Amino acid sequence: MAATTVETSKLQVLVPGGVGFIGSHCVIELIKAGYEPIVLDNLSNSSIECLKRVEQIAGCKITNYKLDCLDLEGLRDIFKKHSIYAIMNFAALKSVGESVQKPVLYYKNNVGCLFNLLTCMEEFNVKNFLFSSSATVYGAPQYLPLDEKHPCIGDSITNPYGKSKYICEHVLKDTAIAHPDWNIIILRYFNPVGAHESGLIGEDPVGRPNNLMPYVAQVAVGRLPFVNVTGTDYDTPDGTGYSVLEMIKALEKASGKTIAFKECPRRPGDLASVYADSALAAKELGWTAQRNLDDMCRDLWRWQSKNPNGFQ
Amino acid sequence: MAATTVETSKLQVLVPGGVGFIGSHCVIELIKAGYEPIVLDNLSNSSIECLKRVEQIAGCKITNYKLDCLDLEGLRDIFKKHSIYAIMNFAALKSVGESVQKPVLYYKNNVGCLFNLLTCMEEFNVKNFLFSSSATVYGAPQYLPLDEKHPCIGDSITNPYGKSKYICEHVLKDTAIAHPDWNIIILRYFNPVGAHESGLIGEDPVGRPNNLMPYVAQVAVGRLPFVNVTGTDYDTPDGTGYSVLEMIKALEKASGKTIAFKECPRRPGDLASVYADSALAAKELGWTAQRNLDDMCRDLWRWQSKNPNGFQ
Repeated sequence: MAATTVETSKLQVLVPGGVGFIGSHCVIELIKAGYEPIVLDNLSNSSIECLKRVEQIAGCKITNYKLDCLDLEGLRDIFKKHSIYAIMNFAALKSVGESVQKPVLYYKNNVGCLFNLLTCMEEFNVKNFLFSSSATVYGAPQYLPLDEKHPCIGDSITNPYGKSKYICEHVLKDTAIAHPDWNIIILRYFNPVGAHESGLIGEDPVGRPNNLMPYVAQVAVGRLPFVNVTGTDYDTPDGTGYSVLEMIKALEKASGKTIAFKECPRRPGDLASVYADSALAAKELGWTAQRNLDDMCRDLWRWQSKNPNGFQ
Repeated sequence: MAATTVETSKLQVLVPGGVGFIGSHCVIELIKAGYEPIVLDNLSNSSIECLKRVEQIAGCKITNYKLDCLDLEGLRDIFKKHSIYAIMNFAALKSVGESVQKPVLYYKNNVGCLFNLLTCMEEFNVKNFLFSSSATVYGAPQYLPLDEKHPCIGDSITNPYGKSKYICEHVLKDTAIAHPDWNIIILRYFNPVGAHESGLIGEDPVGRPNNLMPYVAQVAVGRLPFVNVTGTDYDTPDGTGYSVLEMIKALEKASGKTIAFKECPRRPGDLASVYADSALAAKELGWTAQRNLDDMCRDLWRWQSKNPNGFQ
């Protein structure tokens, strides 16, 4: 009885996209921090096996629903059923290249899901929202490192994925003005890398990976033949960031494997260097990165070598 | 039988918002030009009486559905039922002030409807789209008159209504890139004024008018006591545009009524002058304005005086 009372007194946090790469790691941290995550996922780019692993790591069952946030009625049912304290939204389509081919799909999903979540917040009096944005909202950097004051010019964002995040940020800023009692946080991710140190969960992209490190890891584990290094004539390294070749070398070190790569021409639209100034996060939130590149590669390799085919 | 054959050979144009001010006038022009309009409207800010008047003017029945474009399944049913050749979209929430109070509602409606219409275009192979945008996408003018090359900076647009239009333009531009065989037209309206010359249809805002001329006309007809002239210390007239006082004078002339007004302080966010350069439209489309301020006031007054309470 005592345990039940404790259970129901936990604050419930809705986690759309909670079965994905970042979302699943966040669910573990939420449980560790004493919250009760309520996971939503349409499983379009994730596997329910991931959630089972999260339950194994967390040592408890996790409330979860297979639901697309575009389904407003379905979403309302969740809000009726639970007393949601906050939303941490990780649900989105995230392939830059695919977004250029399918802009309607990307905008409808990434922006439309936000509309539905905000609508439910208004209807069910939920006041805390965390949004997963992206460094792509900056477009071409006017200076480096990128900080919170760097402008975001819509016209300079070259793909619908990035622009969908930019649009969501605009919507959220106006929503914050209209609802001064709400707490809205926008996080702009810069190439998240790594995996849970248990090796039980990690990034498992469907099809050919669109991001560098999952690609490199699949080469290391033998699923892909070589890495395309697109552009070897950029003015890098920059002193604080890592180059593509340094990333490959780091995973070679972590895995003990030789990772084949092929030099290719630059891709149109690619930027030489993009990296973040985390000084404000350190000052205001006391946040600093806890892991270095070797740590990230070690965790990534543990995940990839234990699960060469991801969750399948 | 011949008549039926002619009827079904007409190209069908879907007109969301076809019962509203601009939409209803467009429906008449579509019929005159030999198209068959298929009208959609959720009637949230319009009256079905308007459609009856349009039928009276056009001399024919008009296919119409009470439907909200946010209802994707309902929209799909329309596309299944009809062979849509083009969409001319006039459906939107349009109150600048209300949009600041209710940004989620405005974004969800104005942007969400576009997502659903574009989704149906992809699913049903419709390739022609006309979008009703707004001069508000320019934000504070960097020069006057405003032309097609003037930049639109998202951060300088001060209200969610304008920003919803700006977002739709971004979505449409990326959609045009992904679908090079589509024809997408964006019209940026600058304060549409007037009424059909029959006096049967015209602008009929629900509640207190948010735009100048419907407000002035309701003062002239006795529904409102006086016009608030918000700011009398602007650096106007500009030589080509009209000042608020000139507009009031013009309607006094057309109506033969004295229109009371009250001088008030400037409203924050108001711009001194906003007017368009229509040279490119003249050059590329052969379009020039056919009516001057006196014509517009005459038509507006005919409508307002014949229908002091609008369509009610």
